[in-house]
Amino acid sequence: MFSFEEYLKDLKKRADEILIRFMPEADGFQKTLIEAMNYSLLTGGKRIRPVLMLETWKIFGGIDEDLIAPFVAAIEMIHTFSLVHDDLPAMDNDLYRRGRKTTHAVYGAGIATLAGDGLLNFAFETALKSFGKGYDGRVIEALKILSLKAGIYGMAGGQCADIENENSNDVSDVLIDFVNEHKTACMIESSLMIGGILAGAEAKDIASLEKAGSCLGIAFQIRDDILNKTGSEKELGKPVGSDESKGKNNYVHVHGLEAAQKKVRELSQSAIEIFDELYKNNGIEYAFLSELTQKMTERTK
Amino acid sequence: MFSFEEYLKDLKKRADEILIRFMPEADGFQKTLIEAMNYSLLTGGKRIRPVLMLETWKIFGGIDEDLIAPFVAAIEMIHTFSLVHDDLPAMDNDLYRRGRKTTHAVYGAGIATLAGDGLLNFAFETALKSFGKGYDGRVIEALKILSLKAGIYGMAGGQCADIENENSNDVSDVLIDFVNEHKTACMIESSLMIGGILAGAEAKDIASLEKAGSCLGIAFQIRDDILNKTGSEKELGKPVGSDESKGKNNYVHVHGLEAAQKKVRELSQSAIEIFDELYKNNGIEYAFLSELTQKMTERTK
Repeated sequence: MFSFEEYLKDLKKRADEILIRFMPEADGFQKTLIEAMNYSLLTGGKRIRPVLMLETWKIFGGIDEDLIAPFVAAIEMIHTFSLVHDDLPAMDNDLYRRGRKTTHAVYGAGIATLAGDGLLNFAFETALKSFGKGYDGRVIEALKILSLKAGIYGMAGGQCADIENENSNDVSDVLIDFVNEHKTACMIESSLMIGGILAGAEAKDIASLEKAGSCLGIAFQIRDDILNKTGSEKELGKPVGSDESKGKNNYVHVHGLEAAQKKVRELSQSAIEIFDELYKNNGIEYAFLSELTQKMTERTK
Repeated sequence: MFSFEEYLKDLKKRADEILIRFMPEADGFQKTLIEAMNYSLLTGGKRIRPVLMLETWKIFGGIDEDLIAPFVAAIEMIHTFSLVHDDLPAMDNDLYRRGRKTTHAVYGAGIATLAGDGLLNFAFETALKSFGKGYDGRVIEALKILSLKAGIYGMAGGQCADIENENSNDVSDVLIDFVNEHKTACMIESSLMIGGILAGAEAKDIASLEKAGSCLGIAFQIRDDILNKTGSEKELGKPVGSDESKGKNNYVHVHGLEAAQKKVRELSQSAIEIFDELYKNNGIEYAFLSELTQKMTERTK
């Protein structure tokens, strides 16, 4: 009998070990930069994207963890880079995240900007280490997804729309959906897709993973918006109500709490159905990702 | 008989055409982001890195320009990203570059941060388009150099050391050399190396290109430092003496003008010798890169 908590803890531990393995030692003239990168990356964090990637890899029969490990590290580096830059004074100007000071609050905005840049670039440097292990074709596909989903047609595009949406009095449903899909869901999609691609999943399954990632990612973001309105600072490790005070528009703001909660339930149900089907088709009994989806979209912190 | 100016103009024109081909249209919710990226990238600039890459590609017999074009675009995107972030209020806080307002001066620091991020990520997205043209092994090697030379062990590492070196009273020769090598020369090295790698040059020639790039890059940077002290604002398109007023330490500041001029001559001579040898070995009569090195390290703007 599987224990969800044990299973999750084990995957997160593997993700942390992989991250530590790929992060460079802080040394030489770039010591401060590497320290700031490590500070951002190696403390706290749910490691949701690495966990999703490792588990999808398993569903599709991935064996040699050396092949996927560089991408597991890379996805968390890109996610962390986006947080470091999002927190900058020029962006959200957040001083705390996960209950700790943000990177710029510790190292200053200049080094924090560079640390974000360093993490994004090092993500690609790291992912390239998957070449030469007998699956270069898959690695090329995985790199294309990694860069696409992080870029202007993915996360960065969502961040731009999110910044512009601040303090706007005329925010459309379409814009909110665009931000949630791009800023948050794209990186969840790529986590799942890359796990599948590197394990050799078929195109139709990769398409299912993209769809599931979209549902899960958007549900996760709306849940975050709900918590930003209703949660407690102690549990979240960051100030509540910060979205509102910054004039940020989100799903809760536009549609109200009740509709937001309903949307989260619908989307997580859609993701769970896809995951259940994928597990069943691959002869795996315990559908961890379905349970994780439920937990993630019902979380209180 | 070759005309240097015509030859350079032609290479720069090809570089510009390639850049325009790969840059996305500003449209949709990410319109402002893409506009800011285009603003940063598509106006002005000497296109030195693309020119170096295209010419090295030619020396080693590169034929199908479709193979190298994505990397030509990528190297300029990475260079531009570094300028956009360098100019940010949190970094150098420069309002003018190449005689025009910097990206943050036009779009604000938030969008400029994102535009830099977008350019760095899009550089990799673009370079990946070189796959599938029959030379995937070379493309993998080129990607490794592209990311290595831009990252913490390359340009980003140099930028960190440069920031920390500001306002320091105890600046060693070793630190200045590290900054010049990493912040500036690494991207010159990768331009040359990638041109060679994609054309199928041998390892010993790639090593020569790296050495030449190091000499040229450092000479170019010291020449820049000399101009920052002695040039005119009108010619440079940016304020002179800005390094000094910001407490920046550089080669000129540490060793004096005369020693700096001597160093530039020595380094450019070393680069020219390597280039001359490479052209000779490949049976090419007109050594454009040697002449370009001379022009670049004697430039007055």
